Amino acid sequence: MSMTTTTLDPEVLRARLDRAGAAASNADLDALLVTPGSDLRYLLGVGGSSFERLTCLVLPAAGSAAAPALVLPKLEEPGYADVPVEALGLEIVTWVDGEDPYQVVNDLLRRGGGAARQLAVSDMMPALHALRLRDAVSGSHQVLAGPVLRELRMRKDAAEIAGLRKAGEAIDRVHARMGEWLRVGRTEAEVGADIAEAIVAEGHTEVAFVIVGSGPNGASPHHGLSDRRIEAGDVVVVDIGGPVAEGYNSDCTRMYVMGEPAHDDVRETYAVLQAAQEAAVAAVRPGVTAEQIDAAARSVIADAGFGEYFVHRTGHGIGLDVHEDPYIVSGNDLALEPGMAFSVEPGIYLPGRWGARIEDIVVVTEDGVERLNNRTRDLVRLPA
Amino acid sequence: MSMTTTTLDPEVLRARLDRAGAAASNADLDALLVTPGSDLRYLLGVGGSSFERLTCLVLPAAGSAAAPALVLPKLEEPGYADVPVEALGLEIVTWVDGEDPYQVVNDLLRRGGGAARQLAVSDMMPALHALRLRDAVSGSHQVLAGPVLRELRMRKDAAEIAGLRKAGEAIDRVHARMGEWLRVGRTEAEVGADIAEAIVAEGHTEVAFVIVGSGPNGASPHHGLSDRRIEAGDVVVVDIGGPVAEGYNSDCTRMYVMGEPAHDDVRETYAVLQAAQEAAVAAVRPGVTAEQIDAAARSVIADAGFGEYFVHRTGHGIGLDVHEDPYIVSGNDLALEPGMAFSVEPGIYLPGRWGARIEDIVVVTEDGVERLNNRTRDLVRLPA
Repeated sequence: MSMTTTTLDPEVLRARLDRAGAAASNADLDALLVTPGSDLRYLLGVGGSSFERLTCLVLPAAGSAAAPALVLPKLEEPGYADVPVEALGLEIVTWVDGEDPYQVVNDLLRRGGGAARQLAVSDMMPALHALRLRDAVSGSHQVLAGPVLRELRMRKDAAEIAGLRKAGEAIDRVHARMGEWLRVGRTEAEVGADIAEAIVAEGHTEVAFVIVGSGPNGASPHHGLSDRRIEAGDVVVVDIGGPVAEGYNSDCTRMYVMGEPAHDDVRETYAVLQAAQEAAVAAVRPGVTAEQIDAAARSVIADAGFGEYFVHRTGHGIGLDVHEDPYIVSGNDLALEPGMAFSVEPGIYLPGRWGARIEDIVVVTEDGVERLNNRTRDLVRLPA
Repeated sequence: MSMTTTTLDPEVLRARLDRAGAAASNADLDALLVTPGSDLRYLLGVGGSSFERLTCLVLPAAGSAAAPALVLPKLEEPGYADVPVEALGLEIVTWVDGEDPYQVVNDLLRRGGGAARQLAVSDMMPALHALRLRDAVSGSHQVLAGPVLRELRMRKDAAEIAGLRKAGEAIDRVHARMGEWLRVGRTEAEVGADIAEAIVAEGHTEVAFVIVGSGPNGASPHHGLSDRRIEAGDVVVVDIGGPVAEGYNSDCTRMYVMGEPAHDDVRETYAVLQAAQEAAVAAVRPGVTAEQIDAAARSVIADAGFGEYFVHRTGHGIGLDVHEDPYIVSGNDLALEPGMAFSVEPGIYLPGRWGARIEDIVVVTEDGVERLNNRTRDLVRLPA
């Protein structure tokens, strides 16, 4: 698959590799092993793509004599042409069909008597590669790289926030056009196909997800699309997003109603949800914990008697992945810092009847919060 | 993300689960652990989708007293509504945020004194889940489920081949329209965006990949798209595909030239490639080995003096995944059987100049081969 790349400043990437190496050392790791995906894109500026052939960044912990190396199939080398190899001091080691790339990684780790006891593998590395690396690097113990890399990735710099802001503006433009597609008599799938086209037309490189939950389907938080036809009176959840060229994702839920709501309790209940979402966003500032943001939304909903219908956490971090740290959930006592970005998306789901969710991406600033989605959070009435 | 599902006959799924359990037993495994993806879709009819929350099919080996169980987050339960739970004797075990789903899997494995020494995990299971399962199920050793499941998945039944045939027809219709988009002066990325739209319009549920390699870019086998503008005389590689609703993928490469080829050697070299692809397809029948198919293509190219420019294997299996077993590669002595489906896609890549590849999906029949792509394999001339 093609991937639109945007060139990153080599100094930014160099600093990320250095910080990752230092964090690995602090965590008593010998090396990080990173296969294609968001972690690789964060560290090298190119996320790569991967079927069954191994591509793997071998990043020794700080203090090691070894240089970082990128192991990759010879025929995929052109896909990494944008990686500033020299500025990063990165060695490229290619292999061809018939060679054992896992042994290549082992040899790199062992060079100069290097240790390979504690190896961190990227969270999204397929077991296909993780187990073969386990077997090839004898005496090693694998742990997850997530705890190390999330400390870097969840603290976003200005360029990353600019990427998220661009994504937010693009998805806002899609919501602004919802009346073109969301009409009584059409199926959710038909509406979803139009939305998907608009997600790309408005500036995303691809579609990450499209949820159109109409009427009772809106009461299922992870409903996608179905052949149900939109009816007059339906409350409709539209939760959509995708990445822009810089790799950063949008994720925004807005609510629509086709004419007059079919249920008497919509206006009042929706007001509770809207107040909950506002309260949670208003609570965001440095030093407040992730679980306090969750509690800010949850307490408004619980106080109104809907606690049992808010069946998920309040939000998730967002960046190169749609879901990443920090998670806005009870039990997460992480103190927010400037540069952290996450969704605030409480919901109320009334099984078999209707449901609603309101979602913005927000960024923690030096003294408060910036919302990256700015379309109205009111229940938008469309013609029935 | 939404996923279009097609309902499968419960008896077909039941038979697959039984065969997988029996194969696990034969491989001395205690259970298969399968997370969302193609393996899960093959076994349950629903592939699921997965961010960071664990969904996992726990399938005990045949002979175990335990029933298969699907562990999944409570809020994703509606996504599995199409799974014929009763017909499969499948237990659904949901968990909510705050619970430990890995311990849930461990408890399921230990029920009734069950053994959990040798556990096979699906090849695409993220390390995030594999390592946590490793730690939660003490005393267990993980191996890959691929060797067990590929024995099932690479032998396709009539319905699966019908899915592949439908995908082949859909991608043929996209190639038939190539002249609408592939024109001198447009960038590969612009052409690629139009192709992507047509891939969906012609009957795929999504776009898996779009390669438009023009002029010298065609000499890089895994080139995707770029901002290079198509020029008069360019030879252009167009390699495209995606899944249809049944989940089965297309993957077809056809070659185009913008007016008269810019290089003198195009006609003659292309004829070699075309003969190589014909020879490989003609060699397909039950009993022939995968590597013999590779050799059939390779020998034609090598005999013409281009051996060093054919830098990859001849093909890959295809089904619910774009790349799966059987791989058509030197060293694979697997004997072909009716129902096996794979690509035949030799290429000749002349670095810095131009490249070409011709690719069909073929299915092994009782006495020979069926091609699933039927557009001309000639170099198609478009106006310059």
